[in-house]
Order: sequence, then C-alpha cells, then structure tokens
Amino acid sequence: MKCELWFSEYQTKALKLSTKVKDVLYTGNSKYQEIQILDTEEYGRALILDNTYQTTERDEFIYHELISHPALFTHPNPKKVLVIGGGDGGTVREVVKHETVEKIDFVELDEKVVEVCKKYMPTLSCEIDNEKVNTIFTDGIRYVAETNEKYDVIIVDCPDPVGPAKGLFEREFYKNVYKCLNDDGIMVQQTESPLFNKDLIKNIHFYLKEAKFNIIRPLVVTIPTYPSGFWSFTVASKKYDPLKVDSEKIKEKLNNIKTKYYDEEVHKGVFLAVPKFLKE
Amino acid sequence: MKCELWFSEYQTKALKLSTKVKDVLYTGNSKYQEIQILDTEEYGRALILDNTYQTTERDEFIYHELISHPALFTHPNPKKVLVIGGGDGGTVREVVKHETVEKIDFVELDEKVVEVCKKYMPTLSCEIDNEKVNTIFTDGIRYVAETNEKYDVIIVDCPDPVGPAKGLFEREFYKNVYKCLNDDGIMVQQTESPLFNKDLIKNIHFYLKEAKFNIIRPLVVTIPTYPSGFWSFTVASKKYDPLKVDSEKIKEKLNNIKTKYYDEEVHKGVFLAVPKFLKE
Repeated sequence: MKCELWFSEYQTKALKLSTKVKDVLYTGNSKYQEIQILDTEEYGRALILDNTYQTTERDEFIYHELISHPALFTHPNPKKVLVIGGGDGGTVREVVKHETVEKIDFVELDEKVVEVCKKYMPTLSCEIDNEKVNTIFTDGIRYVAETNEKYDVIIVDCPDPVGPAKGLFEREFYKNVYKCLNDDGIMVQQTESPLFNKDLIKNIHFYLKEAKFNIIRPLVVTIPTYPSGFWSFTVASKKYDPLKVDSEKIKEKLNNIKTKYYDEEVHKGVFLAVPKFLKE
Repeated sequence: MKCELWFSEYQTKALKLSTKVKDVLYTGNSKYQEIQILDTEEYGRALILDNTYQTTERDEFIYHELISHPALFTHPNPKKVLVIGGGDGGTVREVVKHETVEKIDFVELDEKVVEVCKKYMPTLSCEIDNEKVNTIFTDGIRYVAETNEKYDVIIVDCPDPVGPAKGLFEREFYKNVYKCLNDDGIMVQQTESPLFNKDLIKNIHFYLKEAKFNIIRPLVVTIPTYPSGFWSFTVASKKYDPLKVDSEKIKEKLNNIKTKYYDEEVHKGVFLAVPKFLKE
C-alpha cells in the first residue's frame, strides 16, 4: 500500500480543508513566513504560506480575474497601477493584459515568495519580469504612507489580517491609499468571507467611507480553497461606479483580453449578487 | 485532554472537508441510506446522508433561498408547486412564503429523512406540516412519469447523481418534468459544481433543450459545505425569462417575504455572475 500524503489547513478551529498531495515541491522559510509549494491531486500546484492556502493552479483564475478586472474595467483609461502583495504574480499577470496600462508598481513584502513562485508557479508568475512591471520589495503599508506616486488603480492582494498584514485592513492604510490615487482613482482589496468575517467587512466599509471614497461596492465569488469558499472583494472608487460601466465598452475591450471567468455580464453580476445580509 | 470528534467527507478522492463535532444527535439507517444529524461547531446542526453533507443550519439559507426564489419570482403567479426531494424541508419552507402558492406537492423518497429532520432540524422542517403541503413518499422520477398533475413551478432539490438519484439528471426525467408543467411553467434543479462537474452541467443543458424548454439559465452561488463550494442551479422555463422580470415587482413582493440572501439585485446577479467558461 502506498503512503498517502495529505495537507490540511485549519481554516477555523473547527473546520479543516484537506487535499491529497502528490509531491512536496518546496519547503522553506523566509524572514516572514514558512513557504510551501505542494503538488495536489485536486487543485494542481498550491502555494501555502504558514499552513494557509494562498492560491492553486486550478482555481487561481477566479481570484486573480476578480481582484483585477472589475476595478480595471471600471476605470476608462488605467495607465499606472499599484499592486500590493500577490507575490505569486497572478494579479500582475491579469493587469498586464490591459493595453492602456503603462506601468505597474508591484510592492511585495517577501522576496522569497516571488523567487519561489517564479520557479514553481510559472503559469502565475509569468509576467513578473514584464518590462512594465517594477518590483519593489517592501512593506505595502509603509509604501503608501511614504510614496509621492499617484495611481489610477490600486489593487490590494493581501493575505488574511493576521501578523504583518493586519495593517492592510486598518483606517490609516485606507487613508494613504486614497492619497495615492488620482482624482478618478479606484482601489480594490480582497476582503475575506461574508459568512465568517462580516464584522471585518463592515469595518472596512466604514474606514473606506471615512477615507472619503465616494463609491464603495463589495462583490462576491467562490474561492474554493478559502475558509467557507464564500469570498468578497471590495471596490472603492473616487469617481466611477462599477455598476454604471457600459457593458458594450467592456465587451469591446475583451476582444483583446483573454479571460476564463470575467466578462461584461460577470462584471455586473458579482456586484449585484451580494447577499442581502451583507448589504444591511 | 478532551477527545476531539471530527466528521470528514471525502468530497472527491483527493479532497476532504472536516468539521469538529460537538455531539452526534442521531445515527440510523433507512431503506435507502445512512442518516446522521451532527451538531458541528462551525456550521451548527448538519444533515449527513451516506457520509455526505446535505445541509447545515448555518448556511442552509443560501441553498434554500436560491433553489426557490429565482424560479418562484420569475413566475408571475405560482399557485401549484411540486418539490422533488429536499426531505429536510428547507425548500418547502421557502415556497410556503409565497402567498400566491395554494398547494405544494412534496415528493420525497425517504420517509425516514423527513421524520428525523422534523425532530432534529426544526428551523428547516417547520413548514412540512403546513396545510398547503401535501407530502407524498415516493420516487420523484416515477412520480413525474406517472402523474397527470400540472404545476406552475417544479423544484428538483436532489442529492448528487449517484444511486437512486441518478435518474434525476437523465433525459427521460426532464421530458416528464416538461410534461408536468403548465404552458408557462418553470423548473429549477440543483446542478452540482461548475468547477468539478462541467460536463454534467453541459449534459443537463442539452437534455433541457431537447425537452423543448425555451429559456435555460444556470445561476451560481457558494454553498460552503459542498465540493469546491462553487455551486450551480439551473432554471428551465417555457415562457418567462428570469432576467426579464421587473425588479420593482420583486421588490414589492419582498415586502411580505423575509429573506436573508435573496433580493431583487441578487435575482439578476446570480444569473449574470455565471463564469464565462460555463457559458461556453
């Protein structure tokens, strides 16, 4: 009988998701966390940080398309984009697809994650070395506090609000993001589970309002390997409303952009599908 | 140290979802399957059939609202409804909320499931004894083949397509459902995971077309305890298009119907949010 290897994440103290592992491709420690690349049977290669699923080859397109395109297609002409976090490169890959984008500042805390993903997750990290991408290894919280750069779109592709990432969900951070956006700028962030983290989402909404964003809209989607699978992103915008974008314009732009999940209907649907209990 | 009890479902051969169990409230066998009611820490009481999560107190509102209301609100005046399966009673509870509905034929194969849920899942089974509900213990596949009754809406709240439920996903069944619907009738069925069961969904679409349904629309939502969490329902309609229902009319009717998830925006959103890869 063959030895069976499984990886289990305690998604909460009372909930565990386990995937059968074909091969452990990498295990190592950076200054900040433990990094693993596992080759799983169900989801393909998976990036695990501190025993937590970050992304998998099979389902990553859902997360990366939905954190990128609803915001990028809401802005009529995004040229300069800031990506905070997302060391695997999946978000950068989606942003690069937009022809209008001239420069992407890619701010990631952990150089080791990028190095490992470049080697083991090539379908995600493939555009990190694109000439439009300027990779900066530093703390995103400090970066937005100190920089004088201004962006059209800021994407916060952050881990859960524990440890160093906690500050990415706090009042001060949102004020600095607002400051770093042009007058018609848009930010988007992954904002955890509507089922398990309702209070956090409420706080974020409150902070974004306080930071003076005019339009704040959550969107919902399934991320199979995250706690409960039920996931939210929040778009906060100074000027453009994601629900008022002309579907025909999205459709036209999509002639040059290859997606698996996102289209002009999904753009509207994911915002409208936000459950009643979350709107309240 | 206290003994820790966990329940694990092998959702696929290589994927396992485990919940910590506070108490095993019921274990027994019916003619058809093993039935368990577990009190879990994360999801409250859970109905488990043959080691498979069917429904849990914490997340059941998502499933039951989305299998019921998009179809029921698409029909302008649903009076007679057939519910096939759904022995826990959650779907019947949602249908009863519609004042226009005069009669619900509730066809469930396994009498024991209903008996157990009446005792252990009262928040779901609370309307099974409503005077509008006519419970019939028989095979839903046979029922639609043999009955001369006609319905406005037929809801197929079925388990996975294994064992006796297999026929609920086959050509013949959809033809019989069509036959049992009035000329402006609508059916809806849970149709598994877009990520794990794409081919099945494709087949269902094909069979529904073959059965001469004019409008066929999948919708997507997260069901946290189902494989991948990413779930679909499919609405098939003879006349009314779910996407052409007047939002104001839904809003008005919702003044008298209490929901946690569904509203007039969700009605549109869940259909529009269907991923591009599934549309193709």
